[in-house]
Amino acid sequence: MIADMLKENDAEYFIMHATSRDANFLYATRFKTYDPLTYISGIDGTEILLVPEMEKRRAERESRVKEIVSLEDMGFKEKLKKLNDAKIAFLEILVSVLKEGRCRRVLIPEELPSFISFELMKHFDVRVVRNPFSKLRIVKNSGEIEKIREVSNAITSTFKWLIENFRFKKCEEVRRAIDTKLFSAGYLAENTICSTGKLSADPHELGKGQIEDHLIIDIFPKSMDHGYYSDFTRTVFLSKNDDLEEMYSAVVAAQEEALKMMRDGVDAKDVHERVKEVLSSHGYRTEKSEGFIHSTGHGVGLEVHEEPRISEQSVILRQGMVVTVEPGLYYKDVGGVRVEDTVVVRKNDCEILTPFEKFIRLY
Amino acid sequence: MIADMLKENDAEYFIMHATSRDANFLYATRFKTYDPLTYISGIDGTEILLVPEMEKRRAERESRVKEIVSLEDMGFKEKLKKLNDAKIAFLEILVSVLKEGRCRRVLIPEELPSFISFELMKHFDVRVVRNPFSKLRIVKNSGEIEKIREVSNAITSTFKWLIENFRFKKCEEVRRAIDTKLFSAGYLAENTICSTGKLSADPHELGKGQIEDHLIIDIFPKSMDHGYYSDFTRTVFLSKNDDLEEMYSAVVAAQEEALKMMRDGVDAKDVHERVKEVLSSHGYRTEKSEGFIHSTGHGVGLEVHEEPRISEQSVILRQGMVVTVEPGLYYKDVGGVRVEDTVVVRKNDCEILTPFEKFIRLY
Repeated sequence: MIADMLKENDAEYFIMHATSRDANFLYATRFKTYDPLTYISGIDGTEILLVPEMEKRRAERESRVKEIVSLEDMGFKEKLKKLNDAKIAFLEILVSVLKEGRCRRVLIPEELPSFISFELMKHFDVRVVRNPFSKLRIVKNSGEIEKIREVSNAITSTFKWLIENFRFKKCEEVRRAIDTKLFSAGYLAENTICSTGKLSADPHELGKGQIEDHLIIDIFPKSMDHGYYSDFTRTVFLSKNDDLEEMYSAVVAAQEEALKMMRDGVDAKDVHERVKEVLSSHGYRTEKSEGFIHSTGHGVGLEVHEEPRISEQSVILRQGMVVTVEPGLYYKDVGGVRVEDTVVVRKNDCEILTPFEKFIRLY
Repeated sequence: MIADMLKENDAEYFIMHATSRDANFLYATRFKTYDPLTYISGIDGTEILLVPEMEKRRAERESRVKEIVSLEDMGFKEKLKKLNDAKIAFLEILVSVLKEGRCRRVLIPEELPSFISFELMKHFDVRVVRNPFSKLRIVKNSGEIEKIREVSNAITSTFKWLIENFRFKKCEEVRRAIDTKLFSAGYLAENTICSTGKLSADPHELGKGQIEDHLIIDIFPKSMDHGYYSDFTRTVFLSKNDDLEEMYSAVVAAQEEALKMMRDGVDAKDVHERVKEVLSSHGYRTEKSEGFIHSTGHGVGLEVHEEPRISEQSVILRQGMVVTVEPGLYYKDVGGVRVEDTVVVRKNDCEILTPFEKFIRLY
């Protein structure tokens, strides 16, 4: 697939330079690294991983890429001695590798660091492309779906435990309880949202202090084993608040309508428009600063937010895409509510990976 | 300081585009975000954070940057409708903001994604610079040192607990015990190294399976509150192995010599050379593939590996720098050993932030 893209663009090489925090790099190499490494893919189908010597054996054992080349084998230490700059020494090696491969044009992904692309421009024709691995990642295979299902199950069982044992007074206590429970099971949730009161009108507010009449609990851990995420939100009511409960009923109704539409071939934009319609019909604003102020959903995989988006942008949903459906309403004088599930798009419908009752009243 | 750099380069603006996983972005903004945002700094000292509308209020509350501009205020939704591409819509807004500020030349950090720098080149003169925030981050102020000290204390107390309660059979159990203990105290250790046997000859091998005669335990958590790291390694012996213990005595001796040299004004390269000398004098190789195969240390802060490096590269150590000193020896037919402490460089010496006995025999 990379080779096809290279042919189409009349280019010899595609390169990435990243750590395994970069989902495309992790997807392409299946190699965990804290320090950035260089992945090179050629028009003849060759793939090379350029690594420091100290990573060579580990990369040979663990990476999906078969040809591992060490910087030291390419004269890194000698260059570093001469240049006294590790980045310049690295760039000299990268350029020489591409020149040896008779490179004229190189394709780079949008996110390639500029210090590399600017150096490459001095030697080659450089063309920026949307990362082909981002495209490959949009539709999940069955192995990936099973991984996301596993994370989803960890979320719902943790949430069930939380609700059954709810005796917390502060947002921070709820977050710590969820995150510790998940961590001990092998899932990392770093910024779980447990927000309350009027501050919950900001969708990404983490939440702090005394729990007021409701809590938005948004849990999106990744597996520390394989790196896949899942994403789930419920709004929980601790005391009666008619305004917030009415808002929540509207987002649950909007989510139901959206879920009914999810299937192979549907334009995500139409799903987003439908959510706006339902919320409008309940009397809520779907403008920019208050009301429904974010998109309807996003892809979930090796990143918690990835393609496709369910938003104003037109994109056809395909079988095997894993996305969230998460309408919310936010008013700064009242607070916010949101409901969210992660689903797999199927031929004629969707499967909800995070099934859990929608209305949770603890009063 | 950014303004000075802009004047020197006869440029009007400096920009970054990153998430808070990027340490420079986090340092500059002190704002936590999963999705990339844009930071713009002008020659007149103005700083702007360009964010989606849904992040505006949170950014106003939490960010160090005072002027928050929302993409939606700049016509994002209309552009998205017209262009059907969120990245192109964003680029149009970024270019218009810079043009309104009468930009002719813009400075970009080495790591700026190429899709942005290539678009900027169509409109402005673009110059790549080493990120000025990386430079600012090299020397820590007393508040930062206290944060790293706090993480260091969490590491040593966890390690003390581990050694006192050591009854593990597998590498994975040791890792889980350390990581869960740290997590429940507010520290995230995601890839703690607990490696044994011959595989430990690869410095970044995480370790798996039955514990053999020794364990390299390398712990480098970050605070989930403030994001600072610390880094610590001991080699623990579970049964007698003269080869490995002799290697470990040599690295401990080399570390002692290196620590004696650490002070303001010393060239890190000379420290690295001294470590190589000591290891050579003990009869070990300091070549590329076996023996001492990595650098002597690295800076520690908002990244676990940051500047300065203690390596072949010449760089003068300064008071307030926080670095590791971590000689190791690795032979693929024997295994690896390493000792590591995180230290603060002071005027006339260094302070060890992770004090703990070096020789730990559990047999």
